[in-house]
Amino acid sequence: MAVRRYISRNIPLYEILTEEGLSLIEHNADTILEEVGIEFRDDPEALRLWKDAGADVDGERVRIPRGMARELLKQAPAEFTQHARNPERSVQIGGNNTVFAPVYGPPFIRNLDEGRRYATLADFQKLVKIIYMTPGLHHSGGTVCEPVDVPVNKRHLDMVYTHMRNSDKPFMGSVTAPERAEDTVAMAKLLFGEEFVDNNTCIINLINANSPMTFDATMLGALKVYAAAGQACIVSPFILAGAMAPVTIAGTLTQTLAEAMAGMAFAQLVRPGAPVVFGSFASSISMQSGAPTFGTPEPALVLYGCSALARRLGVPFRSGGSLCGSKVPDAQAAYESANTLLPTVLAGVNFALHSAGWLEGGLVSSFEKLVMDGDQLAMMHNMLAGVDLSENGQAMDAIREVGPGSHYLGATHTQANFQTAFFRSQIADNNSFEQWESEGGQDASQRANALWKKRLEEYQDPGLDPAIDEALQDFVARKKESMPDSFSA
Amino acid sequence: MAVRRYISRNIPLYEILTEEGLSLIEHNADTILEEVGIEFRDDPEALRLWKDAGADVDGERVRIPRGMARELLKQAPAEFTQHARNPERSVQIGGNNTVFAPVYGPPFIRNLDEGRRYATLADFQKLVKIIYMTPGLHHSGGTVCEPVDVPVNKRHLDMVYTHMRNSDKPFMGSVTAPERAEDTVAMAKLLFGEEFVDNNTCIINLINANSPMTFDATMLGALKVYAAAGQACIVSPFILAGAMAPVTIAGTLTQTLAEAMAGMAFAQLVRPGAPVVFGSFASSISMQSGAPTFGTPEPALVLYGCSALARRLGVPFRSGGSLCGSKVPDAQAAYESANTLLPTVLAGVNFALHSAGWLEGGLVSSFEKLVMDGDQLAMMHNMLAGVDLSENGQAMDAIREVGPGSHYLGATHTQANFQTAFFRSQIADNNSFEQWESEGGQDASQRANALWKKRLEEYQDPGLDPAIDEALQDFVARKKESMPDSFSA
Repeated sequence: MAVRRYISRNIPLYEILTEEGLSLIEHNADTILEEVGIEFRDDPEALRLWKDAGADVDGERVRIPRGMARELLKQAPAEFTQHARNPERSVQIGGNNTVFAPVYGPPFIRNLDEGRRYATLADFQKLVKIIYMTPGLHHSGGTVCEPVDVPVNKRHLDMVYTHMRNSDKPFMGSVTAPERAEDTVAMAKLLFGEEFVDNNTCIINLINANSPMTFDATMLGALKVYAAAGQACIVSPFILAGAMAPVTIAGTLTQTLAEAMAGMAFAQLVRPGAPVVFGSFASSISMQSGAPTFGTPEPALVLYGCSALARRLGVPFRSGGSLCGSKVPDAQAAYESANTLLPTVLAGVNFALHSAGWLEGGLVSSFEKLVMDGDQLAMMHNMLAGVDLSENGQAMDAIREVGPGSHYLGATHTQANFQTAFFRSQIADNNSFEQWESEGGQDASQRANALWKKRLEEYQDPGLDPAIDEALQDFVARKKESMPDSFSA
Repeated sequence: MAVRRYISRNIPLYEILTEEGLSLIEHNADTILEEVGIEFRDDPEALRLWKDAGADVDGERVRIPRGMARELLKQAPAEFTQHARNPERSVQIGGNNTVFAPVYGPPFIRNLDEGRRYATLADFQKLVKIIYMTPGLHHSGGTVCEPVDVPVNKRHLDMVYTHMRNSDKPFMGSVTAPERAEDTVAMAKLLFGEEFVDNNTCIINLINANSPMTFDATMLGALKVYAAAGQACIVSPFILAGAMAPVTIAGTLTQTLAEAMAGMAFAQLVRPGAPVVFGSFASSISMQSGAPTFGTPEPALVLYGCSALARRLGVPFRSGGSLCGSKVPDAQAAYESANTLLPTVLAGVNFALHSAGWLEGGLVSSFEKLVMDGDQLAMMHNMLAGVDLSENGQAMDAIREVGPGSHYLGATHTQANFQTAFFRSQIADNNSFEQWESEGGQDASQRANALWKKRLEEYQDPGLDPAIDEALQDFVARKKESMPDSFSA
């Protein structure tokens, strides 16, 4: 399997706002931090850290003096390496680089054979294997589906173990309780060695703000564990504009910046220099139903704006992916996903969660959409490579050789460049209508169904040192034995 | 029905090449014109015009001195108005404006009820009515399907009449023979009045180059008729890279520029100041089958580059649309279409042909895809409106009013802005899974099937002065009587 670790862009960024517009939003975000403040709930330690740093702490409300968050963030790295156990799959997060990670969080799965049902650990394992075999996906992800057949308080152990055992791509840690974050770090130490984890970033994880302007104890607890261990935190306001933020693009940008700065700056209080990522998940909502909508222009405009704000802050940026509201992998799913993915790459997103497999507003992990989106991700390698202006790229010899009224198919230059010239889709059917019809007249989702099964069948086990595997299995078993099963939170 | 004449962009352009890269391509294009030359076939008048202008004419090969084509094009307008019979639907082509026109040319139609079959005049009439009722489409287009039940030498009369009678949006003229172009101009004079047509652009039409580096007599004949009448010509190299142009992006850009410059400059020889549009239709081909592929990165990169080259030339630009190779309006169709449409708007295309309804590489006009794409086009109005940075857009009052941990749904600012805040799709289903399932679990193409039928049912006849209508019908009847039926070319 071809290894493409991540994409280093060779095309310009797309900027939606001017210097003046970005400065206005930054000024307003500082006004939020200073005047309105952010709530850090049920976490006296967090309040103490803020107070010691010079913020105005009133109950659980933390008011952060203008410029203080930005100043604290000067300690955070502009880019960092997240190590994979296979060094050839380590990813560089930040700068000119884009890393594609799969869908995160769905309690349901869907495939053409079984329809829609609750996800299981067996699904989780299959998805990790398909992701491993999908060249466009640089990252194994985290909760690629919720294995709801495993008790809530134990499933993180199975999920982390599956990423470690069945893939050698980098992975995400558990954030649903501080002790689950600690388990993740402990397992990473078994996999990478204790000293290596102490000195390197081996885990990235997703810390959502409770927008508007609130962080809760669960997320703060996980953030503190990871930041203290020098592991990377993506601080992501999760915003349905009109509900968790103002109904305008500029208002959403402002609040997102304020919340992300507060969370990332807090990580610096926990451990100066802790790697952090500015996250933004923004969608609009349907006026009729209040349901989130995806692939619309407003979230794309937020994405372009936030990416520029993150660059000015000097931290990596997470957003975008292949988001959609559709229930099935149909045209709605694809329009909406493409309308999210293209802004993702043109804006220069560094870590793109939900890049493949996301369906139904994130409630469903779709096997077919996973490989359909994966095909689009592979394509982005060619897109971001840009235009080759070398002599071979200019092709003047070919033009002179062929001349008017002839064709290039047999030209020397065409023969020499054909193999690498164009992106080749694994999903699209470009055959004649007659051939397509004679082969069953399948739509894209049916071809995707065959492709994920093929990937699963051809899965190549990356192998794992038996001693490490045994240690991990022993850790999981002991942890599971130490707790009664719980099926809530 | 809401009238949105065209889009005037309020967001920046996306540029893929630097000044240096663009200059290199311009230099190479001039090298093609000067050294290799362009063939103007079976048209002694064209050769004479070029010779008189100072080009080197050798047989049918015209070698154009470096800089001469660019110099001739200084006479062409940077932007112009194409008048509709309803002045509220006239479009501005060029500058900051984008005009969406429907699919052009398919001999087949497809819809969910009948599948795929040859198109008829009845289909053509239905499509024109649906296009008229689709707010995202600013233009009635031209050959929205080929009415193959009408003789080849007569169908242009029915097509032009249908656009004139059933729509009051601007339309495209016939180019399949010089006399059909003359019929189009004659009918336009009946519709708009002779003097108005003499002094204004009322027709736009599509002149394809026979790439590589060739124009044939048919296209030259139509171009001469329209240019002489002061009507607009889109000069479009039609390129499947690897077959009609080099297999590289820079090579395709160079040849496209050379061919388009030659064709547009020729229009200036016919009538100095004739409105012209730099056209580019570029796709890659499948290595396995030789079939054209769409929605891949390479054509998008060509599109971004050509758009910048057209701006530097000072003429409007045509490219893009909602292209796809899929046989059905599925996920492949939507990914590929979105991957063409977003570059179309970010690159600043002025006239986007094939913006809705295109299926199967342009062989099929799809009723469902017409309204699905139309929904995406309507969305682009919001996208290109950009970010509102007014005080209301900044929404600081809303943020202060709501504060941490609450929500914005009932906030004064939300209530005041909700109606206009977000794009609302006519096709996407964002309801809960349960509601969607209880309503039949339809995919996007099934909802689109209902929508085009609704549009047809609600069609509002724009009306036409009975005297003009009679004159047009009389013209069509007399022309048809004057010729025997022909079913080839």
